[in-house]
Amino acid sequence: VTVYLVGAGPGDPGLITARGLELVRSCDVVVHDRLVSDELVAEAPADAIRIPREDFEQRELSALLVSLGQRGLDVVRLKGGDPFLFGRGGEEAIALAEADVEFEVVPGVSSLAAAPGMSAIPITHRDLSSQVTIVSGHEPEGLDFAGLARARGTLVIFMGLAALKTIAERLIAAGKARDAPAAVISRGTTAEQETVVAPLFEIADAASALSPPALVVVGEVVAMREALHHRNRIHAPSLNGRSRG
Amino acid sequence: VTVYLVGAGPGDPGLITARGLELVRSCDVVVHDRLVSDELVAEAPADAIRIPREDFEQRELSALLVSLGQRGLDVVRLKGGDPFLFGRGGEEAIALAEADVEFEVVPGVSSLAAAPGMSAIPITHRDLSSQVTIVSGHEPEGLDFAGLARARGTLVIFMGLAALKTIAERLIAAGKARDAPAAVISRGTTAEQETVVAPLFEIADAASALSPPALVVVGEVVAMREALHHRNRIHAPSLNGRSRG
Repeated sequence: VTVYLVGAGPGDPGLITARGLELVRSCDVVVHDRLVSDELVAEAPADAIRIPREDFEQRELSALLVSLGQRGLDVVRLKGGDPFLFGRGGEEAIALAEADVEFEVVPGVSSLAAAPGMSAIPITHRDLSSQVTIVSGHEPEGLDFAGLARARGTLVIFMGLAALKTIAERLIAAGKARDAPAAVISRGTTAEQETVVAPLFEIADAASALSPPALVVVGEVVAMREALHHRNRIHAPSLNGRSRG
Repeated sequence: VTVYLVGAGPGDPGLITARGLELVRSCDVVVHDRLVSDELVAEAPADAIRIPREDFEQRELSALLVSLGQRGLDVVRLKGGDPFLFGRGGEEAIALAEADVEFEVVPGVSSLAAAPGMSAIPITHRDLSSQVTIVSGHEPEGLDFAGLARARGTLVIFMGLAALKTIAERLIAAGKARDAPAAVISRGTTAEQETVVAPLFEIADAASALSPPALVVVGEVVAMREALHHRNRIHAPSLNGRSRG
């Protein structure tokens, strides 16, 4: 009897971990984020209870996990990306620990390096970037733009598409080079993945047609895409996918 | 015919992705890091060529991948963590692209959130940390200690154990609180995982008996371990593992 906080990965169902997939295939209940692919949710046993996370506020959701765990069920809480990298897994873990319900963390592939990586952008690269700063762009007014503008290496912004114009303007106002290479990767690692590259001052306009979820990358590594892109094969996302050339 | 740059995950063989495992099981050649578990390398077909990466300098290794790819072989380059998060995958990808050899990136679980996560430390947490800064501690003299000391949220240092005393002293000298909560997770996600928690000024002494590979975490989130640890079950790392209570 355990509640498993499982990272489903960045979008491509084939990027769930072997252990995570095993747990999904044997659970009693799966509570899944909207962004988790249908193909993964379908891997749960036919008689498993399926609960979409979006029907609940975070506090209600934590209470739900506690009560399911207390019933003696094996519960898989299937979260996009990794549970502890902007996944709010900590809140759920605390609720479980306080209620004395055993839980297990099963890490997942975050979109952090995966979405840029499958778009031929390495977020670190020798001599170019050995520091990465990660923030959420969900509430941009709370960001430390002065610090972010000065930070070395690569800046990665989760959930930054909606406020991208503001974020880019404030980074530039704080001293970031206006022509810093920037990219937005929409729906990274899925069949709908789209990537737009532009200088920082133009990136919001360039990406205006893209859909969330999206990851924003700012830094010299973005320029590597040009050298890598032409030989970078993208495989068709699926649990048993074959690559497409 | 492709060279696959595959993230093997943080240590536990069960944390490779479903897609990565599928590729290992059908490859002609596997070129693997020392840190990749024997259990994963053993998943390659019996007649696959196995090449340990440590026999080569990085430049030789890139040349090897190019020549294997040019021979028409399916090559899995199995790297610890994620290929593009301190994995030097960019160097290999550039060599392949320049030689016109097709490659595919298969992201992996980085130890970034996985090692702290399986040690009951969420690297982000609502109201506590919504920014993460990642550096390599391999060459500490090159680090921007002033910027790192001022950065909000959580600081994660890869390969930081050897120089931890210097790193902690220089962070404190640059203004970081000497009693900032810090943790070192050694061999995260493996059966040998060990975690030490101490204030920043004491962390190097406290962790002196630990072995690499190790991840250093500095920030308020480390203090959450106390609340979470007692109900956090750690599973026995394996490809088909059962949890231990």
